[in-house]
Amino acid sequence: MKITMAHGSGGRQTAQLIDEIFKKANSNPVLDMMEDSAVVAGDTKIAITTDSFVVTPLIFKGGDIGSLAVCGTVNDLLMRGAVPKYITSAYIIEEGADAELLTKIAASMAETAKEAGVTVVAGDTKVIEGNGGIYINTTGVGFVNENTDIKSANCKNGDVIILSGTLGEHHAAILSERMGVKNNIQSDCAPLGEMVQNMMNTGIEIHAMRDITRGGLGTVLNEFANVSNCGFEIAEEKIPVTPEVEGFCKILGLDPLHMGNEGKMIAVVAEKDAEKAVQIIRKSKYGENAAIIGTVTDGEGVTMLTRLGGRRTVTELYGEGLPRIC
Amino acid sequence: MKITMAHGSGGRQTAQLIDEIFKKANSNPVLDMMEDSAVVAGDTKIAITTDSFVVTPLIFKGGDIGSLAVCGTVNDLLMRGAVPKYITSAYIIEEGADAELLTKIAASMAETAKEAGVTVVAGDTKVIEGNGGIYINTTGVGFVNENTDIKSANCKNGDVIILSGTLGEHHAAILSERMGVKNNIQSDCAPLGEMVQNMMNTGIEIHAMRDITRGGLGTVLNEFANVSNCGFEIAEEKIPVTPEVEGFCKILGLDPLHMGNEGKMIAVVAEKDAEKAVQIIRKSKYGENAAIIGTVTDGEGVTMLTRLGGRRTVTELYGEGLPRIC
Repeated sequence: MKITMAHGSGGRQTAQLIDEIFKKANSNPVLDMMEDSAVVAGDTKIAITTDSFVVTPLIFKGGDIGSLAVCGTVNDLLMRGAVPKYITSAYIIEEGADAELLTKIAASMAETAKEAGVTVVAGDTKVIEGNGGIYINTTGVGFVNENTDIKSANCKNGDVIILSGTLGEHHAAILSERMGVKNNIQSDCAPLGEMVQNMMNTGIEIHAMRDITRGGLGTVLNEFANVSNCGFEIAEEKIPVTPEVEGFCKILGLDPLHMGNEGKMIAVVAEKDAEKAVQIIRKSKYGENAAIIGTVTDGEGVTMLTRLGGRRTVTELYGEGLPRIC
Repeated sequence: MKITMAHGSGGRQTAQLIDEIFKKANSNPVLDMMEDSAVVAGDTKIAITTDSFVVTPLIFKGGDIGSLAVCGTVNDLLMRGAVPKYITSAYIIEEGADAELLTKIAASMAETAKEAGVTVVAGDTKVIEGNGGIYINTTGVGFVNENTDIKSANCKNGDVIILSGTLGEHHAAILSERMGVKNNIQSDCAPLGEMVQNMMNTGIEIHAMRDITRGGLGTVLNEFANVSNCGFEIAEEKIPVTPEVEGFCKILGLDPLHMGNEGKMIAVVAEKDAEKAVQIIRKSKYGENAAIIGTVTDGEGVTMLTRLGGRRTVTELYGEGLPRIC
């Protein structure tokens, strides 16, 4: 079945679309009430984040727009030290979209939400003219402990920089799909709850965290350096990149430092806890390749010690990255 | 200036777009932190709602997609008895969109958020291929008093049905714009906080509330009747409709009972408080034409006493309404 404008007109066919696809994928007492808003338990301090996903292709090696829409938003909550609790799911569907594809995406979204421990509490569906595209907005709400204060501006001289795994997979996977290149590179799209919550529960002194998405590691570290008024020094040989992504980058002249991931993060932690933190991340799902990649200094900007022993400045992404990767 | 795909690629031009348009319209300490998520004060019971807006045209008499995106979401929070607190703002922009138009819409959104008393705490911007369209998702979070329990299923035999004003303006205004019909019908797009909060603060026993959007009054009352297992009886002569909308409907064969509004609501209240409630609504901004239009019975379905003294069943919207009105 193809989606038509009638599926978005608010009448019977809209109800059918919701019943047959979205309700089948996601059913819980709050959502099933179909009220104007969900009323749920709160907490004294909450985190809120929103993100729209417009990736093409809709399904790619290692994930799809549905799993991505959950991971991206859940990870944004985690990066402030929040426990992700609720997520909203709003679809904008272009006419001509395939109902089977939509069913698959909705199921993937529900499965990822389950893994990430979030409940889908509100949804919305709109249909627009177009060519079968699907766009998803997810907004997440999480609970934050009263004493938690994790933010970019908290990085301090002497802190240790931990990268949770290999760089560039999501970007390389999307680009490979678009170019029709056959390889085994899979998106790393994943919810990072286990590593973050294990660090928090063990009392690791985390100063800042950021998932590495559009703009890549270089952009994240420059933002940290700017708002914390510190320098960031990393060592090229410590940065994990799989041989396949490295090869892909060499052929196309891409720099893994500016490529987007969807299941990797940077944690800036107090020196005393660094070794413990990296062990915790390595033991968690999606963190086996975690590594200490450098330290925070009293300088400024981001500097990388190259494999050849030189030093180079790492900039934020200046040029234009690949659009529609998330 | 026209928006291009480069504005959505996560590089310098994306930052410019955000700085020059969205930050100028909306600036507050939480949003300006530019963190992965906003951390804000919460409450023990919260309401969450999400809605995407895809209306065409983007600007219409009485409002635009920006004001609509705030009103729709704020009103959905209010309908559960929540005090709206936070809103997120996620734009999906088609290439070719006009930057001046975007600036106008962002300003209108900020102004309406201010009137509605909500803070924009998180935002997102994506650019997709297309023809200059603009789509906005807003997700709202509100605080709910521990003892508040307002929901569709709470309507009871003997309750009184209050309509907050005249029907059909938003629908008629959008349709007029699309058809190029010249008239003075304006969208009723408005945040309903004043009437709802004044009723709540006065201790009116509200059982259910619903804003009247896609599907119209007929659809809302049928949903109430179904989930509450009650009958709804309304009187045609009590339902306020402006002469201009009535004329417009007669020409086109439209029924105001199935037309969408964006600034009107139904409140189902205990009989003892009905007169007081209607006075409170009438005194509030956007409520001057409020009226008691009927009562809840122990029957089933929705029945209307016609002007001619007959009775007819009011159905939910069966056919397809006008798409993309919100």
